[in-house]
Amino acid sequence: MSQFERSGARAADALRAVRITRNYTVHAEGSVLIEFGGTKVLCTASVEEKVPGHKKGSGEGWVTAEYGMLPRATHTRSDREAARGKQSGRTQEIQRLIGRSMRTVFDLKKLGERTIYLDCDVLQADGGTRTASITGAFVAAQDAVNKLLADGKLKETPILDHVAAISVGIVQGMPLLDLEYTEDSACDTDMNVVMTGAGNYVEVQGTAEGAAFSRKEMDALLLLAEKGIRELVVLQKNSLSN
Amino acid sequence: MSQFERSGARAADALRAVRITRNYTVHAEGSVLIEFGGTKVLCTASVEEKVPGHKKGSGEGWVTAEYGMLPRATHTRSDREAARGKQSGRTQEIQRLIGRSMRTVFDLKKLGERTIYLDCDVLQADGGTRTASITGAFVAAQDAVNKLLADGKLKETPILDHVAAISVGIVQGMPLLDLEYTEDSACDTDMNVVMTGAGNYVEVQGTAEGAAFSRKEMDALLLLAEKGIRELVVLQKNSLSN
Amino acid sequence: MSQFERSGARAADALRAVRITRNYTVHAEGSVLIEFGGTKVLCTASVEEKVPGHKKGSGEGWVTAEYGMLPRATHTRSDREAARGKQSGRTQEIQRLIGRSMRTVFDLKKLGERTIYLDCDVLQADGGTRTASITGAFVAAQDAVNKLLADGKLKETPILDHVAAISVGIVQGMPLLDLEYTEDSACDTDMNVVMTGAGNYVEVQGTAEGAAFSRKEMDALLLLAEKGIRELVVLQKNSLSN
Amino acid sequence: MSQFERSGARAADALRAVRITRNYTVHAEGSVLIEFGGTKVLCTASVEEKVPGHKKGSGEGWVTAEYGMLPRATHTRSDREAARGKQSGRTQEIQRLIGRSMRTVFDLKKLGERTIYLDCDVLQADGGTRTASITGAFVAAQDAVNKLLADGKLKETPILDHVAAISVGIVQGMPLLDLEYTEDSACDTDMNVVMTGAGNYVEVQGTAEGAAFSRKEMDALLLLAEKGIRELVVLQKNSLSN
Amino acid sequence: MSQFERSGARAADALRAVRITRNYTVHAEGSVLIEFGGTKVLCTASVEEKVPGHKKGSGEGWVTAEYGMLPRATHTRSDREAARGKQSGRTQEIQRLIGRSMRTVFDLKKLGERTIYLDCDVLQADGGTRTASITGAFVAAQDAVNKLLADGKLKETPILDHVAAISVGIVQGMPLLDLEYTEDSACDTDMNVVMTGAGNYVEVQGTAEGAAFSRKEMDALLLLAEKGIRELVVLQKNSLSN
Amino acid sequence: MSQFERSGARAADALRAVRITRNYTVHAEGSVLIEFGGTKVLCTASVEEKVPGHKKGSGEGWVTAEYGMLPRATHTRSDREAARGKQSGRTQEIQRLIGRSMRTVFDLKKLGERTIYLDCDVLQADGGTRTASITGAFVAAQDAVNKLLADGKLKETPILDHVAAISVGIVQGMPLLDLEYTEDSACDTDMNVVMTGAGNYVEVQGTAEGAAFSRKEMDALLLLAEKGIRELVVLQKNSLSN
Repeated sequence: MSQFERSGARAADALRAVRITRNYTVHAEGSVLIEFGGTKVLCTASVEEKVPGHKKGSGEGWVTAEYGMLPRATHTRSDREAARGKQSGRTQEIQRLIGRSMRTVFDLKKLGERTIYLDCDVLQADGGTRTASITGAFVAAQDAVNKLLADGKLKETPILDHVAAISVGIVQGMPLLDLEYTEDSACDTDMNVVMTGAGNYVEVQGTAEGAAFSRKEMDALLLLAEKGIRELVVLQKNSLSN
Repeated sequence: MSQFERSGARAADALRAVRITRNYTVHAEGSVLIEFGGTKVLCTASVEEKVPGHKKGSGEGWVTAEYGMLPRATHTRSDREAARGKQSGRTQEIQRLIGRSMRTVFDLKKLGERTIYLDCDVLQADGGTRTASITGAFVAAQDAVNKLLADGKLKETPILDHVAAISVGIVQGMPLLDLEYTEDSACDTDMNVVMTGAGNYVEVQGTAEGAAFSRKEMDALLLLAEKGIRELVVLQKNSLSN
Repeated sequence: MSQFERSGARAADALRAVRITRNYTVHAEGSVLIEFGGTKVLCTASVEEKVPGHKKGSGEGWVTAEYGMLPRATHTRSDREAARGKQSGRTQEIQRLIGRSMRTVFDLKKLGERTIYLDCDVLQADGGTRTASITGAFVAAQDAVNKLLADGKLKETPILDHVAAISVGIVQGMPLLDLEYTEDSACDTDMNVVMTGAGNYVEVQGTAEGAAFSRKEMDALLLLAEKGIRELVVLQKNSLSN
Repeated sequence: MSQFERSGARAADALRAVRITRNYTVHAEGSVLIEFGGTKVLCTASVEEKVPGHKKGSGEGWVTAEYGMLPRATHTRSDREAARGKQSGRTQEIQRLIGRSMRTVFDLKKLGERTIYLDCDVLQADGGTRTASITGAFVAAQDAVNKLLADGKLKETPILDHVAAISVGIVQGMPLLDLEYTEDSACDTDMNVVMTGAGNYVEVQGTAEGAAFSRKEMDALLLLAEKGIRELVVLQKNSLSN
Repeated sequence: MSQFERSGARAADALRAVRITRNYTVHAEGSVLIEFGGTKVLCTASVEEKVPGHKKGSGEGWVTAEYGMLPRATHTRSDREAARGKQSGRTQEIQRLIGRSMRTVFDLKKLGERTIYLDCDVLQADGGTRTASITGAFVAAQDAVNKLLADGKLKETPILDHVAAISVGIVQGMPLLDLEYTEDSACDTDMNVVMTGAGNYVEVQGTAEGAAFSRKEMDALLLLAEKGIRELVVLQKNSLSN
Repeated sequence: MSQFERSGARAADALRAVRITRNYTVHAEGSVLIEFGGTKVLCTASVEEKVPGHKKGSGEGWVTAEYGMLPRATHTRSDREAARGKQSGRTQEIQRLIGRSMRTVFDLKKLGERTIYLDCDVLQADGGTRTASITGAFVAAQDAVNKLLADGKLKETPILDHVAAISVGIVQGMPLLDLEYTEDSACDTDMNVVMTGAGNYVEVQGTAEGAAFSRKEMDALLLLAEKGIRELVVLQKNSLSN
């Protein structure tokens, strides 16, 4: 099998250039533009002093996420979901994933009866938008929590650990880290991995796009993902310490 | 940690009683009631001699799935999705998973320009409805394909391999195969695994419900799932050879 | 006019084989599978300890029904209403009919401020699904009420009488009891009749499918329906006494 | 039982003042304002030179109806269905009834591949809006057909007979013809009857609002309805001959 | 440029025949049929003793409007919005305009915590339906307020001034007052103007349908509109003094 | 009346700092970030080689717009329209305005049978988002047209003139150009003006938020708007010449 060439001569186990820009917009309690190469997602964290019905009177808070793509974030224009009148199954799947991932690192009791909304809106897409959303949303959530602490609304942080995510996949037999769009379209197996700062799994979602994959391939992908996420957590920390 | 007791003294690596009843209803080309203990799902396969827009003129067929739960399949009544006017995110996630899983073992070119709809309707729920759906839908699909072959509409089968699925999870630190509802509610980690008859992965979806899980735990779960799916494929074969 | 032959040499005034299976599923307070020949409807009764807005604070309860058909209950697959995002006019008409019929035999004051939901889901259709739903839902409702009595939540039964329903119609000039699908498709006049155990009318819905029908024809149909419903009430009683 | 007094000392078997105003608006091919006492319904017939999908290429036409109520046609304001985003079950039931009734007196083959839409919009409601709609829609349809004949688009009329409708009911034990709103609210049994000019039944829909009703009561109601409809057909003919 | 001839030899600065019929229907607190030539709109004012969420507990009332067109109010039949399941952008734009216009002449504090709904339903359309709606809705609102005063529910009127509206436009270079449908379809510029009895502007909405328009043209249109609205306010006053 | 102080000591007739960044994202045929002070709107132009139904076979193209706001573009979070399942009346009003404005400067015949979609998505809102959208969308449309010309798909430009827009209003009696959010909330009269490069009006939408406004006030606002739009057209030209 001829070796697959990544764009920019990127190594199989290398992330794209990742940039995290905090305070990208002014109104939200947390506002982060996260870029993985050509993928750009605006993640905002909004705090509301109330909780949804199933948490009312529980003393606990809630963390939830919504995801969207601008119609021309993609190579060809997609229908606007607001105009079509419903969110696609893909959109719902992604925003449920982001929400679950964020809640894993939150102590909802310590958050108190308030909600943090994480809005992840893709301005430009080049693969990996859901994992970029999780990685960026964490930073936005941290900024929002820091504001609550600074304002005296929280005494101690409800955030238990970092959480970050990356996609991995097998293209022409080669396990690759952080797939860009052309790789994603060509891959046989696609896996999204979400991990904590401590290196434990929050979500593993592997899908055979073409042929089913072997246990050996899965192990190779998990190893790559772990490496990528370790690097992303460092980038989150650097960004937050500025 | 005190040992977790499964109902009916079931072993940690044992499936519940699985029953596959073919020809459960009369109109569908394939109609299977699959039971995993108290979980009962009616899986029908319907053949239509046309394809959705994105396949028109391609010479290829399509395989897709829809999933539903009767309002009182569950312990307390849930709203009817048809009355609420939309399918929940959970429902869409599940039916997309079933559809993808089935397509992995189909050669759509050999199917020709026709569609197989797999309708998985839960009559009674006790955990594991999505994996039961996949396992039962395969048998229904096989019956529908056999009918197409018998009717001379197909010369050779488009089905490449078996596909089956099972849930595994960690309850009170113990990895368990085939979670029933009370186990599912109590588990820290929940994983749905879909594999082919050849023993390769089609989907792996692991989710930390409580704490994040370690690589060692994931390995234990994958091992259990592989054992369970091997047994399910035997059950599928036995059912189809009657 | 040549005499119309019914399948299985059934007499013009004979019901199909009717089977009533109680406790068909385990979670609902009442769960009945009712079969009229090839028509199979699962009727569950669910009790909720609250009432809709228009009954709040009235001291009265509410009885309501929902109806659905599995997509492949029918000869060719129908769209799933949950996926289309709305219930058809036909579905709404039927579930309103079932709800009204059940309320006629309920003393809502004696029920107290609780709701009984009757979910009628057609697993297999061969004509007469709405009348089978009413006949089966009554048995499920009776089981749910018996449970409320046994649990001490009710002192006396709010059920005033039996209620059952049957379809009748004119096919090739012949009045027939309990139409199956092929007869229903061929009939000139189709009538659904709902009656109480005491032999009074709850609903009469006669429709000319082809030519309008005469008073004499209507009288013949009403007579047939009365006979059928008298037999159905006996079957309900037998089933409930087991 | 004390005798029930109708408003305006109306006899039990008397219609309210019925007025049929043709050409009430200018654009529609048929436009009829029909009044039954305080009930006022605008019925328009619109001809379109195409048919819905299920009739394409059949050589046959289609006749269908839609029904609406202005928000303040009633004593208290109702929500606007267009604003709520869906038609109620009641609305759908009524418009399906109007459509079926009209089709019974149409030879769809003679209509040719065109559609007649009958829009029945209630400007003011005082009971009996659905039966007024049917009675008025027939006149509007006749005007539209006459226009098609005059324009040479039809050679012979596709209309086979008159169709008209009336409500009857039992109030305080007394069978009454043509219920107005206060009677409708107080009645035990409510029946809508649709008949042809030849005196045959198109639809009979009897509903026990309170107690179930006896065969004797039904017979009394059918007799009243027949009388009323005979008078309505005369009024339709008079209106059309002007 | 050849002079444009208006139908009926109407002068460029002349309104069509305007008729205002109060108490057109009986249930609403205000009910006005307003006619501008062939345009006929039924405007009802309904009072409800509650306010929407954003006004609860404010001590202030609310005035809002809804707009609709009967399907065959127009030359060719339009889809019924209730059946399509949503209001068009045009409908929403118009009803927002009517609501804003009415609120400008209402002192919501003096109205107290109640809502006035203005329902404007077009029975027949020949241009200028939105401006007719505003002009007619004011009269209906005045009637509803008079009823509240007569019933002692209000001590003083919350209505501050008259409000009325007219369309103006440029057809073949000629500024015209009160466009009818054929003029509206042919015009280059279309302007809707809403003014108070005191002669101030509430809304000005000018739109270039074809070429953009000059300041001089706008001035001519504003002058025409002012003349028309002055006349409409006189007609409103005459109608209300009967 | 005390003089109203604008933030940053801005003069009453001064625009905020306006920045136009072309090629802000990579996939769209035109992609412009336009900023008016704190208001930031991403305007993309997407070309599709087909037209909507009403233009099929006409030889003409179509230009249309969609508008959206990210949930946290505003001071407090707004519901996501895609999640609520419909676009608000305000959103529809704005996107219809943008579309109409753009079409005024397009010769649809010269565009040929293709569609230009203008997507205007507000990343950050501080007043004037609809006028910024129009001003930015024009630049994006020009870039898309230039690409069509460069690719040889168009021989000559279908763009007839520039189009730009600005808001003006009266705050505490003072006419102001280019309202920011705090001014917009406080203003008595709010006017959006759209003009061509030649200085003619495309749209004028003036609304009395509080008291009605006089002709003199309108004249002052139109003068201010004209000045602002003249400056914006220069900024558009400068941006396009880079």
